[in-house]
Amino acid sequence: MINVDDRIRDKCGVFGVFGHEDASALTALGLHALQHRGQESAGIVSFDGKNFNNQLNLGLVGDYFTKERVIKRLPGYAALGHVRYSTTGKTLFKNIQPLFADLQGGGLACSHNGNLTNGIELRKRLIREGSIFQSTSDTEAFIHLISKSKEKTIVKKIIDALYEIKGAYSFGLLTNKKLIGIRDPLGIRPLVLGSLGKAKIISSETCALDIIGAKFIREIKCGEIIAIDKDGMKSYNPFPNSKERPCIFEYIYFARPDSIMSGNSVYEYRKRMGKELAKEYKTDGDIIIPVPDSGVPAALGYSIQSKIPFDLGIIRNHYVGRTFIEPTQKIRQLGIKLKHNPNKKLIKGKKVILIDDSIVRGTTAIKIVEMVREAEALEVHMRVSSPPIKFPDYYGIDTPKKEELLAANNSIKEMEKKLKLDSLHFLSIEGLYKSMGLIKRNSVSPQFTDHCFSGDYPTELTDKNEGILSSQLSLLSDN
Amino acid sequence: MINVDDRIRDKCGVFGVFGHEDASALTALGLHALQHRGQESAGIVSFDGKNFNNQLNLGLVGDYFTKERVIKRLPGYAALGHVRYSTTGKTLFKNIQPLFADLQGGGLACSHNGNLTNGIELRKRLIREGSIFQSTSDTEAFIHLISKSKEKTIVKKIIDALYEIKGAYSFGLLTNKKLIGIRDPLGIRPLVLGSLGKAKIISSETCALDIIGAKFIREIKCGEIIAIDKDGMKSYNPFPNSKERPCIFEYIYFARPDSIMSGNSVYEYRKRMGKELAKEYKTDGDIIIPVPDSGVPAALGYSIQSKIPFDLGIIRNHYVGRTFIEPTQKIRQLGIKLKHNPNKKLIKGKKVILIDDSIVRGTTAIKIVEMVREAEALEVHMRVSSPPIKFPDYYGIDTPKKEELLAANNSIKEMEKKLKLDSLHFLSIEGLYKSMGLIKRNSVSPQFTDHCFSGDYPTELTDKNEGILSSQLSLLSDN
Amino acid sequence: MINVDDRIRDKCGVFGVFGHEDASALTALGLHALQHRGQESAGIVSFDGKNFNNQLNLGLVGDYFTKERVIKRLPGYAALGHVRYSTTGKTLFKNIQPLFADLQGGGLACSHNGNLTNGIELRKRLIREGSIFQSTSDTEAFIHLISKSKEKTIVKKIIDALYEIKGAYSFGLLTNKKLIGIRDPLGIRPLVLGSLGKAKIISSETCALDIIGAKFIREIKCGEIIAIDKDGMKSYNPFPNSKERPCIFEYIYFARPDSIMSGNSVYEYRKRMGKELAKEYKTDGDIIIPVPDSGVPAALGYSIQSKIPFDLGIIRNHYVGRTFIEPTQKIRQLGIKLKHNPNKKLIKGKKVILIDDSIVRGTTAIKIVEMVREAEALEVHMRVSSPPIKFPDYYGIDTPKKEELLAANNSIKEMEKKLKLDSLHFLSIEGLYKSMGLIKRNSVSPQFTDHCFSGDYPTELTDKNEGILSSQLSLLSDN
Amino acid sequence: MINVDDRIRDKCGVFGVFGHEDASALTALGLHALQHRGQESAGIVSFDGKNFNNQLNLGLVGDYFTKERVIKRLPGYAALGHVRYSTTGKTLFKNIQPLFADLQGGGLACSHNGNLTNGIELRKRLIREGSIFQSTSDTEAFIHLISKSKEKTIVKKIIDALYEIKGAYSFGLLTNKKLIGIRDPLGIRPLVLGSLGKAKIISSETCALDIIGAKFIREIKCGEIIAIDKDGMKSYNPFPNSKERPCIFEYIYFARPDSIMSGNSVYEYRKRMGKELAKEYKTDGDIIIPVPDSGVPAALGYSIQSKIPFDLGIIRNHYVGRTFIEPTQKIRQLGIKLKHNPNKKLIKGKKVILIDDSIVRGTTAIKIVEMVREAEALEVHMRVSSPPIKFPDYYGIDTPKKEELLAANNSIKEMEKKLKLDSLHFLSIEGLYKSMGLIKRNSVSPQFTDHCFSGDYPTELTDKNEGILSSQLSLLSDN
Repeated sequence: MINVDDRIRDKCGVFGVFGHEDASALTALGLHALQHRGQESAGIVSFDGKNFNNQLNLGLVGDYFTKERVIKRLPGYAALGHVRYSTTGKTLFKNIQPLFADLQGGGLACSHNGNLTNGIELRKRLIREGSIFQSTSDTEAFIHLISKSKEKTIVKKIIDALYEIKGAYSFGLLTNKKLIGIRDPLGIRPLVLGSLGKAKIISSETCALDIIGAKFIREIKCGEIIAIDKDGMKSYNPFPNSKERPCIFEYIYFARPDSIMSGNSVYEYRKRMGKELAKEYKTDGDIIIPVPDSGVPAALGYSIQSKIPFDLGIIRNHYVGRTFIEPTQKIRQLGIKLKHNPNKKLIKGKKVILIDDSIVRGTTAIKIVEMVREAEALEVHMRVSSPPIKFPDYYGIDTPKKEELLAANNSIKEMEKKLKLDSLHFLSIEGLYKSMGLIKRNSVSPQFTDHCFSGDYPTELTDKNEGILSSQLSLLSDN
Repeated sequence: MINVDDRIRDKCGVFGVFGHEDASALTALGLHALQHRGQESAGIVSFDGKNFNNQLNLGLVGDYFTKERVIKRLPGYAALGHVRYSTTGKTLFKNIQPLFADLQGGGLACSHNGNLTNGIELRKRLIREGSIFQSTSDTEAFIHLISKSKEKTIVKKIIDALYEIKGAYSFGLLTNKKLIGIRDPLGIRPLVLGSLGKAKIISSETCALDIIGAKFIREIKCGEIIAIDKDGMKSYNPFPNSKERPCIFEYIYFARPDSIMSGNSVYEYRKRMGKELAKEYKTDGDIIIPVPDSGVPAALGYSIQSKIPFDLGIIRNHYVGRTFIEPTQKIRQLGIKLKHNPNKKLIKGKKVILIDDSIVRGTTAIKIVEMVREAEALEVHMRVSSPPIKFPDYYGIDTPKKEELLAANNSIKEMEKKLKLDSLHFLSIEGLYKSMGLIKRNSVSPQFTDHCFSGDYPTELTDKNEGILSSQLSLLSDN
Repeated sequence: MINVDDRIRDKCGVFGVFGHEDASALTALGLHALQHRGQESAGIVSFDGKNFNNQLNLGLVGDYFTKERVIKRLPGYAALGHVRYSTTGKTLFKNIQPLFADLQGGGLACSHNGNLTNGIELRKRLIREGSIFQSTSDTEAFIHLISKSKEKTIVKKIIDALYEIKGAYSFGLLTNKKLIGIRDPLGIRPLVLGSLGKAKIISSETCALDIIGAKFIREIKCGEIIAIDKDGMKSYNPFPNSKERPCIFEYIYFARPDSIMSGNSVYEYRKRMGKELAKEYKTDGDIIIPVPDSGVPAALGYSIQSKIPFDLGIIRNHYVGRTFIEPTQKIRQLGIKLKHNPNKKLIKGKKVILIDDSIVRGTTAIKIVEMVREAEALEVHMRVSSPPIKFPDYYGIDTPKKEELLAANNSIKEMEKKLKLDSLHFLSIEGLYKSMGLIKRNSVSPQFTDHCFSGDYPTELTDKNEGILSSQLSLLSDN
Repeated sequence: MINVDDRIRDKCGVFGVFGHEDASALTALGLHALQHRGQESAGIVSFDGKNFNNQLNLGLVGDYFTKERVIKRLPGYAALGHVRYSTTGKTLFKNIQPLFADLQGGGLACSHNGNLTNGIELRKRLIREGSIFQSTSDTEAFIHLISKSKEKTIVKKIIDALYEIKGAYSFGLLTNKKLIGIRDPLGIRPLVLGSLGKAKIISSETCALDIIGAKFIREIKCGEIIAIDKDGMKSYNPFPNSKERPCIFEYIYFARPDSIMSGNSVYEYRKRMGKELAKEYKTDGDIIIPVPDSGVPAALGYSIQSKIPFDLGIIRNHYVGRTFIEPTQKIRQLGIKLKHNPNKKLIKGKKVILIDDSIVRGTTAIKIVEMVREAEALEVHMRVSSPPIKFPDYYGIDTPKKEELLAANNSIKEMEKKLKLDSLHFLSIEGLYKSMGLIKRNSVSPQFTDHCFSGDYPTELTDKNEGILSSQLSLLSDN
């Protein structure tokens, strides 16, 4: 297997509609726009006034939820969807969200973007008390907490449960009366509010509002619960002292460039990171080449700032998608160029400055540099529009273990050598905060969740600190 | 759709092996031998010393569990299987058994043959207390009761739960230490014990021991719990006053003719029912024709007793299986003979005595009689080797509603007219008990569960009496 | 893999309808009734007045052609179908019949039951002349011959082609004007004519007329071409001197017992074979047990003649169908009873006479005898209601090679020993002809094709005699 | 259905390897690199010294030919592959290439890129002569001509056949001895020669050599036959007077930008087209925005020439691929932005110059302009880096009918109005030839096949001129 990608991946996207006769079709479109947030599975639950209906599928949204017969099985004026990328090699069907439970008051569907840092501890306690889990997902602990709450209303039950969970979470919930959006007290993962005529929408990003022509109202606030029903929308604030600290990775590469976050397009933030990068280090080069497609905005910013021309020196095969070829050992040695091919005529004899948005394991970088060298570049420099990734994440991002993170185990010099670069530079943390429009990082109470660069984790890591292993939550291995 | 069958169906079969390296392959074979007890789905859970593994499939055992790759996914020295026939039009994947739950002490798999008559009441109570159900099956209530028991050992937890459930149940349970077989206090559904070398086996019928060459030890007693582990076998008796009252239908047509029950082959009981039937009513006929294949043993018995020759006057197409053709209205009027075809040359000009083991709705009988008449029989008589079915079942048999039961709504005369018979007779309840080797039915404490004939239900019918409707247990309709 | 069967199989069934608006649905039903003639694939071509439409499927008729969407893709008032069993381990999709070709005058679909004994010679010649074959089937040579004929009408083209082919063939052909039925000059394979209202039908057997309530008109004669179109039916006789010599195997076990052949039911012929068998050899026994299901009619005949009681001592699992379990070596040694189980209580202590219709390799017989012995029979005798099979077939029957035919390589004594029988007897060839209502076999011009018993092949075996191997006709191996 | 694309598509790609033990795996990789030339089906035939093997699949190369089991079914040192895009709504499985035929001398596999302009005429003649076609593809006529040739060697047979066919063709052929590449006398479609160690390769484009690290030898010449076998490579030239006239569309947008054609990268030609476009018309604008992704190289060229900054004002969702959502009418009115989303913050208040490589029906352009206007651009100008498409193609490109071609039915003014543009300009034919490095178009003998712009078709259009309709070649409609 040729691994085609060396990316940190976001694990999930959430989308919900309340009050539209085509709620499920709109949700399918919304999930399609959020596809970059999770490609392994997608699911939609709808409520039709009487029954909940669900459709879950391993694979892309467009592979399944484009079919008329699928949408027809999801009638109703309210729908909640989810796209998911799982960190385990194998995706369990039973973990496809939205999860669903029959509570005493009626059904409850739940979509989660993020990760509970005390999910395993909660799971253990709940099983001890007699709860039976149907998935291996941390999300299910939250539902059991709601189910066991002695409170009378669903919102109060939810608040009961929220007080017990830790970590990063943007939840979408659907009951037989309400669509509910929740963001954790630090607002680590995004969640926005939109409207389409009289219908209300919750979505991980604004690009999913755009696809259906919906209006962006505002971001859901950190620690806020928004409950939408036929009488309108209500906001609850169970964490009065919460202070926003969104995940900086959304800006660097998770979010789609056309999404609006903190009042500006993500594309613009990325261009600014490229500009900052060019300011931090002057490099003598003939041509700026982005690593496609993620390096493009930063490369354009770098080119504007540095006045060195931007050009597409590496061509990407758009049919790669998530597939890969598994050839023989002999073939592997040929150095198959599945995803990228150098534009040799353009590169030959030039001093090349490669721009990418990040380096994780370095596996993509090493291949890119090699192919640029084979195309007879005179020099190859790499500039990275984010700081070195030195610490793993526990909030719903798929990062490799620390041992596999290139920058966690190598100095800049060592990395230059490993990647066969003439020079390598990363954007500084300060430069990153400047790109975000801030004067500097507040080291006491950082404006962003940036632990992968700084090691400064925003919440307690119960499961990790207690040494609870998550390798097999359910003893039942899946089919 | 041409409905190819007018049968009462058993809903389930249970099979488990403890202590054999090919536990799952043996279980697959055992389930295949129990296929007549449930054709809609099959499942196996194995335990390999570390993990539980499961494979579930909609369809016949032979369609899936014959594949090497499937059996390879079920390693271990202990396995528990289930075949199932559901009464609802649509079978839910999540209801395929064995059900599985992660309890505090480890995993628990559960296969159930029977039906809880207070399953819905229990479900409601458990949900009220915060339990989340993952299936719509009554069986799951039993697992939640075990999970919530405060007892320390699994057997004690099970006994706790048994004290709360009512109805008919033969359970197979598999934990990371034990294979457990349980029969309800009346022993309504069968469950037997066998051995293969050092391995122990539980099975709904002895025919599943035969297929793998295993030895039949004995029937599990009514109200008995048998727990098998590496140290041997233990018997528990939480219901000291229980008195056996097995379901008479197993003898009439559920069980396979080659199975041994109460010390004799089921085939022999059926032949005796045919003999009793011939004794009860003398009929002047030229030929005994069984309705294939279920009427054959009784017809042979009837022929021996009456000295009228037995012959195959109706030929069955063995490729029908469970499939049916859905032709147009025009075609339906042609009177398609999908399953049976008369042996015209044999029938023409004869006084025919048709023998079947039962009449449920009468839809098959009416077609059979019609085709025998078309083949120019001189007279057509029908003899049925069980009494008229007048009452529905609530113990795990798929009976139609009372309104659809032919004998519940028609006198013998009316049935003769509807079925276009020259005469119709059923075996009497007394005759039935005689065939079973008894002098007479004990009307105070009947020796068999026979409510479908007698209306005498052996247990309280909580859900029914409380008016609890079971139409949609989960609000989430299935895919 | 446990081979569940030791049968000679017929390779094909043909069914066609002309002049009915539900032609395809009727054809699906007809093929279902002919399912015993071929279980590996099924196909239907219909003509709707403008286009030909086809649907081909690997598997049983009922698995595919029961679906409304499939029948909807086969509109038209004329349809031709085929069921097929292939002798090679692997069935090629492109060989599923009806084969279809665009000829100059329009489309031609062709269903074939039988085998051309010069098919390979013809194929070689046609390829030499530039024809391109799309299947590996011998049938295709016939179509190419039609396509290359210089005659003007389709019937004349067909006659041109018939003069070049040798062997056994019952063809159904469908053009944009006609449905055509053809039987070879010896009438080796069957083909009958029926009607349903104004529609005309051709079918391999009458049982497929019965399923749809159609009337049986007559058998198509040996060497006859019947062409049906909107103006009626025409008969052509290109082989004026042909003399009928149908395959005796149809009577012994290919045809369904309820089919009418040569004026009587096949069931009746089989019962008579049992009677003849009882006349030829007196055996002292307590019980007649048929090998289910094929031995039943002969066993009934034997019982009537011998006065020894008939009973079901071996129970067949009807769910076996065409599936089989592939267990481990360890399990294989257990002597798995997948298909049959002895009725032990019945057999114990008895002198058993087993009746089967034939012995091919002997693999089933050996297992049956073994299980009857295990059930503690006092003696086990076997009586076979056809003569010993000593010669392979080349006319569309799946026989094993001569080396594998038990009777071709063993004397009766040797067979008794191998099968562990107290005695073994086969019906004599003379007895067989008597059962067919004849005084004796005409050794100069036998009334039946019986080479498997006699070695007397009815036609030239060109391909065989020329040493032409058929192992891979097309170099292109299939997917 | 939201049609996601308004492109002219190439219909095919060809790739073959001779002399490598991993021939099929290399071919799968090569086809993957040629995926842009055909996304509907892919096929590979290999020869293993004894047998031909094939695998055909509807769908992308990466969906099927990445699987180990698939490649294992394609053993051998020689392989030939094909990717295909069909113009008909429905792709027929039997048309998936390589087509295969058993000829007298052995098997022949054939992959075709292009279209025969007398294919239907030839088909009719061949059927008249008794040939039976197995596909509806024009390619098959070529194989029948080879099959019927009286010549002795395969190359001579091929030349015989080539003299009868007209139109555009790059063929790859595989026999049991040779891999053969053929380009038509005008070299309309591309075909190149490469090597990997001792193995030889033929490929539609050089990018497929790059993916496996193969060396580019040279283009196959117009009218040339290259026959590769174990003894080396031979060139035949049956059309001595042929003069190259390759299809200009390959340069404009069919070929991958990283492919080398006529000595330069396609990317470079496209950048030059953008520069020429900027020279032809001066436009006062603030920002150059490419229509992604096809407009990017021309936009970069335009930006360099015009000094107006290049930026990504339209973001493309890379998950669209070939899927589309089929929503309700209500949803359709929302103006779903499935594929593109404007980068609103960037566009607002700017004079935008949109660059695309072509306009076919105008459906994409109208949506793009609309979304740029909604994003509040001050002005919207469009510049197209190829001339107006006014004439349909008959050489293997999927063009709409003339009635649907925007530029065939509208003046520039009318198009500006329809597309709601402030101005619209196309590159002139002269400018296009300049971009190709030529001084001017030779109107007597044009250097490129450019009839879509000029109406100057390079060959006779037999089928079209004779009024032969191609709507249904085979009467057999496909499943």
